[in-house]
Amino acid sequence: MILFHITDIAGDTAILSGDELRHATKVLRVQQGDHIQMTDGHGMSYECQIQSISKREAVLQIMKKEAITQRIPRLHIAMALTKNMSRFEWFLEKAVEMGIERVTPLICDHSERKHFNAERCRKKVISAATQSLKYHFPTLDELRPLQEILDEATPENTLVAHYQPEQIHLADQLHKDGSYNILIGPEGDFSSKEMSQIKELKLPIVGLSPYRLRTETAGIMACSIFNSVNRSLK
Amino acid sequence: MILFHITDIAGDTAILSGDELRHATKVLRVQQGDHIQMTDGHGMSYECQIQSISKREAVLQIMKKEAITQRIPRLHIAMALTKNMSRFEWFLEKAVEMGIERVTPLICDHSERKHFNAERCRKKVISAATQSLKYHFPTLDELRPLQEILDEATPENTLVAHYQPEQIHLADQLHKDGSYNILIGPEGDFSSKEMSQIKELKLPIVGLSPYRLRTETAGIMACSIFNSVNRSLK
Repeated sequence: MILFHITDIAGDTAILSGDELRHATKVLRVQQGDHIQMTDGHGMSYECQIQSISKREAVLQIMKKEAITQRIPRLHIAMALTKNMSRFEWFLEKAVEMGIERVTPLICDHSERKHFNAERCRKKVISAATQSLKYHFPTLDELRPLQEILDEATPENTLVAHYQPEQIHLADQLHKDGSYNILIGPEGDFSSKEMSQIKELKLPIVGLSPYRLRTETAGIMACSIFNSVNRSLK
Repeated sequence: MILFHITDIAGDTAILSGDELRHATKVLRVQQGDHIQMTDGHGMSYECQIQSISKREAVLQIMKKEAITQRIPRLHIAMALTKNMSRFEWFLEKAVEMGIERVTPLICDHSERKHFNAERCRKKVISAATQSLKYHFPTLDELRPLQEILDEATPENTLVAHYQPEQIHLADQLHKDGSYNILIGPEGDFSSKEMSQIKELKLPIVGLSPYRLRTETAGIMACSIFNSVNRSLK
């Protein structure tokens, strides 16, 4: 099955244009009369038939619509941008495939990168979400300083992944059906000032692996462990 | 800590050359007299002091050596090459970071890609292994047809990851401290002929996620679930 993202809906008619139209016509070679599956990314599923196709747009008749319930529990990862942006984008793609609900890119004391192209990253999110058949697209926040996230954090809702052998393993800290925010630091880790704040807030500090992991690998492992604790195949 | 790969050792002297030398001198700017940590990738750790550096080689004095015990249990993933090779290489890097022991690239009926650059991929393995402080480098096999792997497979040692909602979850199938081979199919999945063979062999078929995953994401999830079942931070 192929899922398309649609934003332009009025009554029982929808218009497909831009990148999605190009993907549909150039790669998948859909034609007038074909049925295709669409989502608005906010939980709606639309089964549509293509009425007409031009270079600029395809006009679709909505045949059937259905609201898809959002999966709970939910995972929010706030992760430092990686120096090499393609590593962050990889994380984003994989996290979306695995069903993350929200990603916040962070600036920390040791962050080497302090800007990111939100529009480009949102396109990656949509592409990974449709590819893996998600009807609820994850939220990708604007870049935020760690400080802002810490201001909202409590030991009940926020865990910090940190590489040090004496920690408890994330899998032993998560409760099935619990929703969590997990913070992941930059290459070079959280600064000692940041770690002091984290300890003052009494946020649980968890380990992911006996190995030193790259930032984006830590992010993927956190998603995967969360999924494993809440395992379900339906 | 930085770990280098060394292959040229005679008695208490080691020679660093090629890519590792360039990395040491150009990126990390090591100098005569510095101490560096090396491994042969077969479990030996060497603490060395740099005696001399030229453009072609660095001569090192081995000050201390130690045999590092290999971690058990062990994970072997046999995974179809992805059409886009960078996806396979990304899997390789992450799997090495997570501590995989062996990777076999597979050709399946639905494989679009049927060749790969083993030398390039071995370099990726070494780079990820030293970066994540591994003293035992994983084995990267030559490309093999699925058939050969199935000829050696038994229900005791081999699991098959396959996307269908009725399966048991991998995390419920793995036993702590067990070593496993996990097979992961190509984009377009195993063919019905391959699935029949897998069923005839009674290999356990497991799911990884309620979502459709890309091949390389399935590979990473399998590593991560294996690590989570055998969780340890030491």
